[in-house]
Amino acid sequence: MQHSTQAIHAKAIELGKLAVQMTTQSGAGHPSSALSLSHLVTTLFFEHLRFDPDNPWHPQADRLVLSEGHAVPIVYAVYADMQGRVGTSPSNSHRLSITDLNGLREFESVLDGHPNPAEGFPFFDAATGSLGMGLSVAAGVAWAALQDGSPRRVYCFIGDGESREGQIWEAADFTIDHKLTNLCAIFNANGEGQAGLVSPQQHAARLIEKLQAFGWRAVEIDGHDPQAIHAAFVEFEQTDRPLAIVARTRKGWGVQPLLGGNYHGQPVPAARLAEAFVSLDEQHRQLGSSPALAVELRSPISIPPRSTTASASPAIQLPPITAALERVGLSGAWQKGKLATRRAYGAALVALADMDERIVVLDGDVSNSTFAEMMAKAHPRRFIECKIAEQNMVSVAAGLAAAGKIPFASSFAKFLARAADQIELAAISRANIKLVGSHSGLGPASDGPSQMALADLAFFQSIGAVDNGRHLPSCVIFQPADAVATYRCVELMANWPAMCYLRTHRPDARIIYSVDERFEVGGSKILRQGNAVILVASGYLVGETMGAAESLAQRGCSCTVIDAYSLPLQSAPILESARNCGGRILTVEDNYGGGFGTAIAEAAAAAGSITVRQIQVRRIPKSARTPEQLMNAYGVSAAAIVEQVIAWSNEV
Amino acid sequence: MQHSTQAIHAKAIELGKLAVQMTTQSGAGHPSSALSLSHLVTTLFFEHLRFDPDNPWHPQADRLVLSEGHAVPIVYAVYADMQGRVGTSPSNSHRLSITDLNGLREFESVLDGHPNPAEGFPFFDAATGSLGMGLSVAAGVAWAALQDGSPRRVYCFIGDGESREGQIWEAADFTIDHKLTNLCAIFNANGEGQAGLVSPQQHAARLIEKLQAFGWRAVEIDGHDPQAIHAAFVEFEQTDRPLAIVARTRKGWGVQPLLGGNYHGQPVPAARLAEAFVSLDEQHRQLGSSPALAVELRSPISIPPRSTTASASPAIQLPPITAALERVGLSGAWQKGKLATRRAYGAALVALADMDERIVVLDGDVSNSTFAEMMAKAHPRRFIECKIAEQNMVSVAAGLAAAGKIPFASSFAKFLARAADQIELAAISRANIKLVGSHSGLGPASDGPSQMALADLAFFQSIGAVDNGRHLPSCVIFQPADAVATYRCVELMANWPAMCYLRTHRPDARIIYSVDERFEVGGSKILRQGNAVILVASGYLVGETMGAAESLAQRGCSCTVIDAYSLPLQSAPILESARNCGGRILTVEDNYGGGFGTAIAEAAAAAGSITVRQIQVRRIPKSARTPEQLMNAYGVSAAAIVEQVIAWSNEV
Repeated sequence: MQHSTQAIHAKAIELGKLAVQMTTQSGAGHPSSALSLSHLVTTLFFEHLRFDPDNPWHPQADRLVLSEGHAVPIVYAVYADMQGRVGTSPSNSHRLSITDLNGLREFESVLDGHPNPAEGFPFFDAATGSLGMGLSVAAGVAWAALQDGSPRRVYCFIGDGESREGQIWEAADFTIDHKLTNLCAIFNANGEGQAGLVSPQQHAARLIEKLQAFGWRAVEIDGHDPQAIHAAFVEFEQTDRPLAIVARTRKGWGVQPLLGGNYHGQPVPAARLAEAFVSLDEQHRQLGSSPALAVELRSPISIPPRSTTASASPAIQLPPITAALERVGLSGAWQKGKLATRRAYGAALVALADMDERIVVLDGDVSNSTFAEMMAKAHPRRFIECKIAEQNMVSVAAGLAAAGKIPFASSFAKFLARAADQIELAAISRANIKLVGSHSGLGPASDGPSQMALADLAFFQSIGAVDNGRHLPSCVIFQPADAVATYRCVELMANWPAMCYLRTHRPDARIIYSVDERFEVGGSKILRQGNAVILVASGYLVGETMGAAESLAQRGCSCTVIDAYSLPLQSAPILESARNCGGRILTVEDNYGGGFGTAIAEAAAAAGSITVRQIQVRRIPKSARTPEQLMNAYGVSAAAIVEQVIAWSNEV
Repeated sequence: MQHSTQAIHAKAIELGKLAVQMTTQSGAGHPSSALSLSHLVTTLFFEHLRFDPDNPWHPQADRLVLSEGHAVPIVYAVYADMQGRVGTSPSNSHRLSITDLNGLREFESVLDGHPNPAEGFPFFDAATGSLGMGLSVAAGVAWAALQDGSPRRVYCFIGDGESREGQIWEAADFTIDHKLTNLCAIFNANGEGQAGLVSPQQHAARLIEKLQAFGWRAVEIDGHDPQAIHAAFVEFEQTDRPLAIVARTRKGWGVQPLLGGNYHGQPVPAARLAEAFVSLDEQHRQLGSSPALAVELRSPISIPPRSTTASASPAIQLPPITAALERVGLSGAWQKGKLATRRAYGAALVALADMDERIVVLDGDVSNSTFAEMMAKAHPRRFIECKIAEQNMVSVAAGLAAAGKIPFASSFAKFLARAADQIELAAISRANIKLVGSHSGLGPASDGPSQMALADLAFFQSIGAVDNGRHLPSCVIFQPADAVATYRCVELMANWPAMCYLRTHRPDARIIYSVDERFEVGGSKILRQGNAVILVASGYLVGETMGAAESLAQRGCSCTVIDAYSLPLQSAPILESARNCGGRILTVEDNYGGGFGTAIAEAAAAAGSITVRQIQVRRIPKSARTPEQLMNAYGVSAAAIVEQVIAWSNEV
């Protein structure tokens, strides 16, 4: 559905005016970046992007990921022009009007400063704005479409300066590995960054060379030439390889006040708005178009009509863990009474995937450590090997979640830190992803601190402690003590409608729960009752703590032991227990803090009268041949617990 | 200094045996990866690397960064062979013996599981092991050498699977932009990853194509051919461009029990050690070498002798801020009585750089927002534009610090999250780097949450709360309230011998401190005395809190206000103040928590009797046109403070 060159120019000018207008009105925004995309966006929306403005939730519609999120005004403009629907759900939505654009960046508006689907702009699949993540998200959406046999195509706009982010090249590798033939990456080579010109390393010619070296088909075009843009999109549609379009563009295209200087993130001053419009009108004259020509454009909707109300998916109910262990050949563990939590994770994945097609698993070349490999063996088509590129893995997972999958992404817990920024953006997107970190804490002892996740709980808990705007914590954390708890926590994760983080451990852990034990988000279990200090632990340290309690009991000091396996923690029962026995709580962790101990200390400090002390790692570790050596050296052990409790009990 | 091919083979076999032996002895480690580097390491150390085993601290010696840190046993082997010196300082060091190798990964050993200079192996400049960071570190060391006019060359070994990490390609761009002609990257293309084979995207041929597309000179060689290796290193030494050597190698080279399967991270079982040695001896026969030939090899030391004891650098003492502001044309701010803390940061950088040659500044294309651009203007040779690649920026800074520079690396605080893993590795390296995040918290209001640093304090504080093994916190955090505090905190950072993080803000802040006010690490200031609740804030929220206190005073409620500008906080004075006035503390923050409020709550919970409540952001934000709108919406404002204090005062 090709329109005349003049009509595209006319619409590009019209949308450009809107982008300039709304940013001036808002007093903030990036009109110059938006204008550099004006023809690309116009051509894409009116000639190629098969979507229904009345139903941005349509599961088979083509998708656009705007990786350079700051350019969003041009997308808001075209969306308003098409009267696209906005809102947090089909039942709570309305059509975006041109007038609405003036609300850009207002607190009451759905038009956030950068793409933010969670606040009512569902056209986008993911929040963007921290640069370099979009191609990975697009790859996740594209992977899901291919797997589902959907005709969906996925487009992604990427800034040239942004392509300096290494994640772009991780996504480029991923796209080739997984043959994402339905993915089109468009690089916006306007040559200008924020603080200065883009490096020659990111110029159009070099981008073409790089993309080809990464195995992509890549074409260079004039990004303000409607014919060339159309031809490139047609080439993408007609062939069976991912295509990269490197488009030479002009930042501030057509707007005199935005040309010839560094106007990144600078709206046109209100006093110069008229001048800006005049210079855009002048483009009509130069290009032989006229405002009236823009009217004829229509969206190329050609997606099959489909109900917007996806049938509600029933909760997944896993069989008993014994059946799941048998399924993966681990029955012996049940008899032996011990199993590493990471192995229980693998068994749970397979059980989940047996029951629900939405389950997909990602891993970064460590599936034989995380035990995601059980999924690779049982359901190879739903196992996605991401290789050593954790940033891409997390953003791909966000894309998969946007496409309706329930993605579990696992790696060493330490290496998930590589994707901290991607995890934050996934949280902002309210992406329903499940992150799993193995070998957490001091566990990888002899490998040394470069392999140990020690700051992870502080990071995830700071996100988890805030509301996601839907009355849910932005991230739920699980650190189960045994195989049963792990199995049921993974089940909880699959059914929970928001981001989760599971922390598993390397060594075998004694099975302490019965096969029918129940667990809940934010829950905890009292494992032992006493009247002296309350000991709170999670993960493998529950075993260590039970040992300490036993030792203390023999010395006449009877302690309560609580397995706090989930954050944000329901702290009231723990504080209540503490009030009943002297008001003392000792928490036990093998991370740097900011996790369970902090959560309880904060609750206690807010409530008063309880005293909380914390055992945690208080020095950057080095190697030792066993975790036990490190636990002793850094005071995270049964002996250290005993010592602290005795000393505390002797205080007045 | 070329040795015979047979001699290199002989030494490679000898070192291979040591790598196998020490990992078997330790029961852990990656001998197969080590063996794939055996010829490369042998040739490098005995023919090219100009360093003095007796003085690994030599400031002009060539350096090796082992990006694929798990291969470290082969480096330990050659280092012991050369009797290299180990220890935490020249005065506390000894020569590493072959016997010492058996201590690999022991708690008492300097031989950590992955390179870890801070625990006594100073040959390395940085801890590695979380993959993909080494080339950036090497680039930082190389940049410093070029600037210092040092003949130093820098070598970096990178795994093929590892080169999937995007950061490698950020470093590749950086190397070309900054013409690091003294940098040699060696890719170890052994084709095997941890969980499976390396993707074709990381095969040797594709790596060559990629490197050339990135502008590198790249040569492919047989990584077990001493002649070819030597020739490639000579090519690097004789030409004036960075060189990438892509070496085809064999994982587990020469050791039958480690070939033909997936033996990543698997030592040879003790029972098969003899078999392993026999198969290595068999290599002698095949290659025409013999053990005796290895003896003749000597290190190619040719660095100028130089004292190991660098003269102690005097502390930098900055002039009054008024002079520094005048220097950068900001005198007017002093008269007006307000200045954004980010501008004060820029002025402080220039003042520091005027006084000390070691000061260098890095930024990621946002220097006109962070105001690092003042440095770019005043000292362009010591301003390093890293473009949009924060991971590389942080690791380059770690390399610069290893080379004796004092690097300040600034970006939007949010975008530093991109480098969370790199920051952790820098902390493990005890890298003396200074990180600066602008636009933190709710400040970038209209830009929306993708631009807001909200989890940053939790992350940095979890690192900062632990000892770095030298009786210092692993990271010190500053959040100054005004220009004077910022200026003096930046001075503190420059003189502090470990990692620091400074959080600056976007809007103008009233100057509240006098020109000669003094600040200290972990300090706080009582700005107002009262007898009701203690209000604790930092950064721009100090102003908001003072406003609340004023409003409360008018309602008969007299509050103490404390500016807690640094973490880890000396909490005792704050708790003492609280005890004297009702035991109530209300903390005020615009982040997700895990920062100042948490630190005080934890101290209070440990001490008992104090009650701490916290104001912080408790929902993922969206856009609003002003920070004030968000502060009101999320209850982080003077009005919210007043409301909480009144309600609290009315409780029994």
